[in-house]
Amino acid sequence: MKEIKIGLIGTGFMGKAHAIAFNAAPSVFELPAKPVCELLADVNLSMAKSRASAWGFSRATDDWRALVADSDVDVVDICSPNFLHKEMALAAIAAGKHVYAEKPLALSAADADEMVAAAERAGVKTLVGFNYIRNSATQLAREIVLSGEIGELIHFRGRHNEDYLLDPQKPNDWHTLRATAGAGALGDVGSHILNMAEFLTGQRITSVCGQLQTVIPMRPKADGSGMAQVENDDQAQAMLRFSDGLIGNIETSRVAAGRKMGLAYTLTGTKGAIVFDQERMSELQLYRHEGPNGRRGFTTLLTGPEHPDYAAFSPAPGHGLGYNDQKIIEVRDLIEGIVNDRPLYPDFREAARVNYLIDAIEKSDQAGQWVTV
Amino acid sequence: MKEIKIGLIGTGFMGKAHAIAFNAAPSVFELPAKPVCELLADVNLSMAKSRASAWGFSRATDDWRALVADSDVDVVDICSPNFLHKEMALAAIAAGKHVYAEKPLALSAADADEMVAAAERAGVKTLVGFNYIRNSATQLAREIVLSGEIGELIHFRGRHNEDYLLDPQKPNDWHTLRATAGAGALGDVGSHILNMAEFLTGQRITSVCGQLQTVIPMRPKADGSGMAQVENDDQAQAMLRFSDGLIGNIETSRVAAGRKMGLAYTLTGTKGAIVFDQERMSELQLYRHEGPNGRRGFTTLLTGPEHPDYAAFSPAPGHGLGYNDQKIIEVRDLIEGIVNDRPLYPDFREAARVNYLIDAIEKSDQAGQWVTV
Amino acid sequence: MKEIKIGLIGTGFMGKAHAIAFNAAPSVFELPAKPVCELLADVNLSMAKSRASAWGFSRATDDWRALVADSDVDVVDICSPNFLHKEMALAAIAAGKHVYAEKPLALSAADADEMVAAAERAGVKTLVGFNYIRNSATQLAREIVLSGEIGELIHFRGRHNEDYLLDPQKPNDWHTLRATAGAGALGDVGSHILNMAEFLTGQRITSVCGQLQTVIPMRPKADGSGMAQVENDDQAQAMLRFSDGLIGNIETSRVAAGRKMGLAYTLTGTKGAIVFDQERMSELQLYRHEGPNGRRGFTTLLTGPEHPDYAAFSPAPGHGLGYNDQKIIEVRDLIEGIVNDRPLYPDFREAARVNYLIDAIEKSDQAGQWVTV
Amino acid sequence: MKEIKIGLIGTGFMGKAHAIAFNAAPSVFELPAKPVCELLADVNLSMAKSRASAWGFSRATDDWRALVADSDVDVVDICSPNFLHKEMALAAIAAGKHVYAEKPLALSAADADEMVAAAERAGVKTLVGFNYIRNSATQLAREIVLSGEIGELIHFRGRHNEDYLLDPQKPNDWHTLRATAGAGALGDVGSHILNMAEFLTGQRITSVCGQLQTVIPMRPKADGSGMAQVENDDQAQAMLRFSDGLIGNIETSRVAAGRKMGLAYTLTGTKGAIVFDQERMSELQLYRHEGPNGRRGFTTLLTGPEHPDYAAFSPAPGHGLGYNDQKIIEVRDLIEGIVNDRPLYPDFREAARVNYLIDAIEKSDQAGQWVTV
Repeated sequence: MKEIKIGLIGTGFMGKAHAIAFNAAPSVFELPAKPVCELLADVNLSMAKSRASAWGFSRATDDWRALVADSDVDVVDICSPNFLHKEMALAAIAAGKHVYAEKPLALSAADADEMVAAAERAGVKTLVGFNYIRNSATQLAREIVLSGEIGELIHFRGRHNEDYLLDPQKPNDWHTLRATAGAGALGDVGSHILNMAEFLTGQRITSVCGQLQTVIPMRPKADGSGMAQVENDDQAQAMLRFSDGLIGNIETSRVAAGRKMGLAYTLTGTKGAIVFDQERMSELQLYRHEGPNGRRGFTTLLTGPEHPDYAAFSPAPGHGLGYNDQKIIEVRDLIEGIVNDRPLYPDFREAARVNYLIDAIEKSDQAGQWVTV
Repeated sequence: MKEIKIGLIGTGFMGKAHAIAFNAAPSVFELPAKPVCELLADVNLSMAKSRASAWGFSRATDDWRALVADSDVDVVDICSPNFLHKEMALAAIAAGKHVYAEKPLALSAADADEMVAAAERAGVKTLVGFNYIRNSATQLAREIVLSGEIGELIHFRGRHNEDYLLDPQKPNDWHTLRATAGAGALGDVGSHILNMAEFLTGQRITSVCGQLQTVIPMRPKADGSGMAQVENDDQAQAMLRFSDGLIGNIETSRVAAGRKMGLAYTLTGTKGAIVFDQERMSELQLYRHEGPNGRRGFTTLLTGPEHPDYAAFSPAPGHGLGYNDQKIIEVRDLIEGIVNDRPLYPDFREAARVNYLIDAIEKSDQAGQWVTV
Repeated sequence: MKEIKIGLIGTGFMGKAHAIAFNAAPSVFELPAKPVCELLADVNLSMAKSRASAWGFSRATDDWRALVADSDVDVVDICSPNFLHKEMALAAIAAGKHVYAEKPLALSAADADEMVAAAERAGVKTLVGFNYIRNSATQLAREIVLSGEIGELIHFRGRHNEDYLLDPQKPNDWHTLRATAGAGALGDVGSHILNMAEFLTGQRITSVCGQLQTVIPMRPKADGSGMAQVENDDQAQAMLRFSDGLIGNIETSRVAAGRKMGLAYTLTGTKGAIVFDQERMSELQLYRHEGPNGRRGFTTLLTGPEHPDYAAFSPAPGHGLGYNDQKIIEVRDLIEGIVNDRPLYPDFREAARVNYLIDAIEKSDQAGQWVTV
Repeated sequence: MKEIKIGLIGTGFMGKAHAIAFNAAPSVFELPAKPVCELLADVNLSMAKSRASAWGFSRATDDWRALVADSDVDVVDICSPNFLHKEMALAAIAAGKHVYAEKPLALSAADADEMVAAAERAGVKTLVGFNYIRNSATQLAREIVLSGEIGELIHFRGRHNEDYLLDPQKPNDWHTLRATAGAGALGDVGSHILNMAEFLTGQRITSVCGQLQTVIPMRPKADGSGMAQVENDDQAQAMLRFSDGLIGNIETSRVAAGRKMGLAYTLTGTKGAIVFDQERMSELQLYRHEGPNGRRGFTTLLTGPEHPDYAAFSPAPGHGLGYNDQKIIEVRDLIEGIVNDRPLYPDFREAARVNYLIDAIEKSDQAGQWVTV
C-alpha cells in the first residue's frame, strides 16, 4: 500500500493528538494510503526522541528546518504555537511539502494571505486542524442545514467559551501576548466558532460588529519577575451578517467560569432548529416544526452509523465518539485529499477566512461600528 | 382585614392570570390586606359579566373609563394590548388610583416618560408585570449575583425567544403593527430579557449595539383581504455595555423555531457562573470555581423552601412552581407595597428603562453603531 | 351559581395546598359549582382561626367531629396524618358527606376495605389525593399509552424517591412508627408510584415480589428522651407483573440522597417509550420507533395547551405548571364529579388498590417470593 | 522496547475495536511493551487478509487453531461469538498463551468454571473485555464510592438496555438461540451491568431474585425458511442483595425502544449519590449531602485530566472520551498486567462471577423466589 510520510513538528498536546490519529486512522478507515510516522521534531532533542519512540516515529530531530527539508517527508504537520505557523509553513511549502497545520492559520490576515499565496503558487495540499467540524454530530448539523430540512436559516448563535485562564495567577505565556498569539480568546478558541459559523451555514459572513475585553489586565510574568500586561482579549463577542440574509452572533472566552469545552451553537431555520453543545459531543438536538403541535419538541439524536463518519468507529448507535476521533477523521481527509488530489477543507485559503473575520472583529471593536469583511 | 379593591381591564390571557393570582394570593402568602376582585372591564359586556362571575369579581362593565372612575376601585389593573396602556394608565393616575400594568409599559420612551411623570406627580403606586423576575430561581440568581458568590460579573447573556409567529400564515394583528405594538419581538418578549438584564446584574445598561430583522415581511390581513406589511421586528439582537464594566448580549425572537418559553440567561462572574432556562423554571445551574478541579461542575439547584418565596407554595424542595405562581408573588408585592407604602419594583420609572433600551437598540440598528442609552 | 361547601381538617402543608386549590380553581376552570371554604378544623383553635382567615374559610373549629357533623359542610376534606384517615372518613361517611382525603387511604388493606365498604353503602363520593396523576405531562403519558401510540407496553419502571429522612438525627415522628404510618417510604411516597403504575398502564398489578429495608434503624425520640426504633421501611423495591403480560419494577425511598421530588417513570412499548421525571414536571420525553434511523431519538415535549388540562392555566406552551396546579385540577375533578354525579378517580375503591399492593409487597418481602395481589 | 505479539480471532465489530486499540494504545499511554499485531484469524481467509492489511497485522489465517498454536503469538485475543469462547480459550491456555477474551466469558457457570480452572492451572494471564468499566467517568464513580465520599452505599440501581432487537422482523441469529448465546439480553448486555454492579460497589452480590421475559417469541429464520422460536430472554430484571447489606436492582433489555447505549446506574449512599448514563459517557452526576440546603444538588462533572486515565487522551477537561478509548485503556491494562506480572481485572475468575449471577437469576426466575449466588 502507498505510504504518506509524516514529519510532525511539536510534541505537546496537539502533537500527541495528531500522533494518535496517524496511528489509529488506518484501522478505523479504509485509507488509500498509509500515513507513516517518519520524523518528529522538537526543540528538545531528548523529548523528540522519547516521543518518537512512544508514538511510532522512525526518527527524531531538534531542527524543524531539517524536518522540512527531509526528502523522506511528504507532509509537514505543524503543531507548534501559533506564532511559528507562518515561518514553518512557508519553509515547508518552499520545500514542496504538503502542509497540515493547527489552527489558527496565522496571527493576522496579512500573514494568512502570504501563506495562502505561497501554498497556491506551489500547488501543495494544505489542511488546517479545525477538528471540531469533523465531529459526526456537527457534520450531521451541516447536512441537515444544507438539505433544507430545517428550512431557510434565519439565525446562527455560536460560542466557544472555556475557562482555562480564569485563574488570575496563571502567568502570561505566549497565549496572552500579541506578538506570539495575535488575538486572545478570539484567536485561540474563537477561531473554531468562526470557522464553524461558515461551515455550518454554508454562507459567508459579510460584516461583523464586535466587542473585545481583557478581563484580567495584568498577569504574573512566567519567570516570576513581577507582573506583565495581557495584550489581547480574554473575551469577545460579535454580531454577524451573512451573505444570504442570515444574521447571528458569536461569543468566545478563555475566562468563562464553568465552561470546559464550551463550543456550542444554535441554528434556527424557518422550519426547525438545531442545538449542539460540544460538552455533549455525541448528541444533536433537532426540532422540526411539523406534525401535531402536541408532539413537537427537540429530539435528542445520539450519533450513530447513519451519521457522517460514525460507522467507521462503531456499528452501533449511541456508543460515542471522543475528542481524538475527530482528529482521526481529519487525518482520513488529509490522506484521501493528498492521494486522490481532492480539495481539502479547510485549506489555507479557507482557513484565512478566520483571520479575516478576527481582524474585522477587532477593527469593529475599535471603531464602535459594523465592519465589512 | 384591610381590603384592596381591584379594577381589572381585560379578560384575555393576562387578565385571567391576574385573576387567578388575586384569588390565590391570600391563601399562599400572609398578606397585610386582602385583594378583592371588585370590577372587571371588557369591551364585550357579556364577556365581562361571564368572566366576572367565574373569576370572583363583584361587578362587570364594558367601559374602562367607568372602571377607572369607580370610587370602589383602589387599583386599576391594565391587561389590555400594549397600545392602550398609556391612555388607561394616565386616566387611572388622574383618578388617583394605583396602577398595575402589563409590560411593556409603553410603545416608546417618550410615552413611558409621560406616564412616569404623571404617576410621580400623583404619588400613586405603580407596578409593571415583568412576572418572570418573580420566579424563585431567578430571584435566587439575583441574590447569588449581588452577594458576590460568583465574584464580579464579567458577562451577561440573555435571550427571550419564542416561535408564536413562526407560521407565515398567522395574520397580522396588533403585535405586528407599529402603531399598536411599537417594537415587535423586542417589545413583546424582548422587554422581559431587557428588564431582567438590569434586575439580575444590579447594573444599568449604558450603551447598546443592536440589530433588528423582520423575517416574514408580509402576512395575511386579519380580515382576509390580502396581505399586509409587518411593521416591526421578528427577531433582534444586541450587544450591551453595563455601568460597571460588564459586557453582554441579548437576543429575542417570535419566530425562533422550537422555543416555547425561551427566556434564558447565563451570568458569568470571576468566581462562578449561573445558567437558567425558563423552560425548566424550577432549576438553576450554579458553578463555583472552587474546591478540587475534579469536583467542579454545574450544580443543578431545584428551587426549594430556602429560596426566595418558594416556601409559601410548598415546604418541600423540588416540588415546582408554575407560571401562575409568578403572578401570585407579583400580587403579593403589589399588595404589600401599597399597604406598607413601600417602593415597588419595577414601577413605571423602572419599567421605562425598558422603553429607553428598546428605543436605543432600534436607533443603533439604524445607525449601524453603538448608541448610549 | 351552585356552591359546594368544604370542611377541611388539617392546617399543615397539605391543608394549605387544598386551600389554595379551592380558592384558585374557579378562576382557572369553568366549574359547574363554586367550592366554598366553609369550615376549617385544627386541634389548635387559634391556628384554625388564623388559617381560616388567611385561607378564606368562614368558620374555624378545634373539633373535627363537629366539622363532620356540620350541616353546612358538603365535603369533608381530610388532610390529617395517615392514621386519622380512617376514623375521620368513616365519621364523615356516616354523616352522609362526600369525602376528599389525602393519600394513602389507610394504614392497611383491611382498613381500606372497611372504608370502601362504608363509602359505597352510603353512596357518597370519594376522592383520594394522588395529585401527581393530574399533572398535564402525566395525563399525556397515559393518553399516549392508552392510544397505542407507543405500541403494546412491555416494561414499566417507576420510582418515587426523596431524601427527607436522610439525616439520621431527624427524630422519630408519626412517619416512622407502624401504628401511625403503616408502611414507611412505601406507604408515604411509594403509594404515589404504585397508584401511578396502574393509572399509566391501564393495567392491574397482579403479583409482586418486594424487598424492604430500614436503613436507619434507630432515631432520636421526638421528645429528646433517647433513641427509639424506626418501625417501617426507609426504602423498598419490588418487581411487578401486570394483568396483560407487562412486567416492571418500582423503587421508593425517603433516604435517597439528592432526590427532592424523585417521582419518575419509564414506559417502554413495542413502538416507543416515554420517560418522565417530576423534578421536571412540565416535560415528557417521547420516543417513537419510526422514521429514518438517523432521526430517531427522544423528543422533549413541553406541556402546552394541546395537552390535558394545560390550557386552563395558560394558552401558551412551555409556560409551566407547578405543584399546586395539580391540586387545582384535582379540585376541578372533585367538584365536577360531585355536581355531575360522575365517578371520581381514584375513589376509595381504587385507592384501596394501593393498600393491597403495599400489603402484598410487605408479605412478599417476608416470604422471599412472589405474592399474588 | 519489548513487544507483546497479538493473535486476534475475529474480524467483526469487536475485532476491529481491538485492532484500533492495539494500534492507538502506544501513542496514548507510555506502555512497558509494544503490542504488535501479529496474526489475524477469520474463517474467511480473504477477509482475514484484507483486515490484516488494514489493521496492521503481519499475517492472516483462516484457522484459529493455527493461530493459537503459533509460536510468535503471545496473547490470544478472542473476539468471536460467545459460544466459541470456551473452546478457543481452552486451546489457547493449553498452548500456554495469555488470553484476552470478549464478554461474556462463557455460556454457563459450569463452562466458566472449567475455563477458570484451566487458566489458573496454566498460570497464564486472562482478561475479559468488560470495556465500559474502563470509562473515566465510571472509574471515577468507583473511586468516589470506595473512598467513602458518598458515605456507605445503601442502594444500587443499574440497567443496560438497548433496542437492537426491537424490530420483530430481525431474524433469529446466534444471539437468540440458547446453544450459541446462553442467556439473551441478560448474557449479552446484562453481563456488563452485572459485572459493573460488583465493580462499582466493591461488594459481592450474594443473592438475587430475577424475572426474565421473551417479548418476541418467534422470529424469522436467518435463511428465510419460516419462523423459529427465540430461546432466550429479550428483557430481564432482578433485585439484588450484596455482601455488606446493600440492596439494589438491575434491568436489561435488547428490545427497549429508544435506548441505544442504555447502560446507566445510580449509586445511593448515606452522604450522597452518583448518577451515570453511558449515552453521556463523559459526565457523572455527583450529589453530596452537605453545605447549605439551598446549594445542594447534583453536580455535573465532565471528565478531565484529574480523573482516572483521562489525561492520556487530553490535558483539557470536557473534551470527551469515546467508545474506542475504553478499549485503549483496556489494552493498556492488558499489556501492563502481562509485562509486570500483575493481576488483571476482570480475569477469568472474576468474569465467571457474571456467569454465576446469570445462572442464579435464571434459576430464581424459574423458582419464583430469591436464590443465593
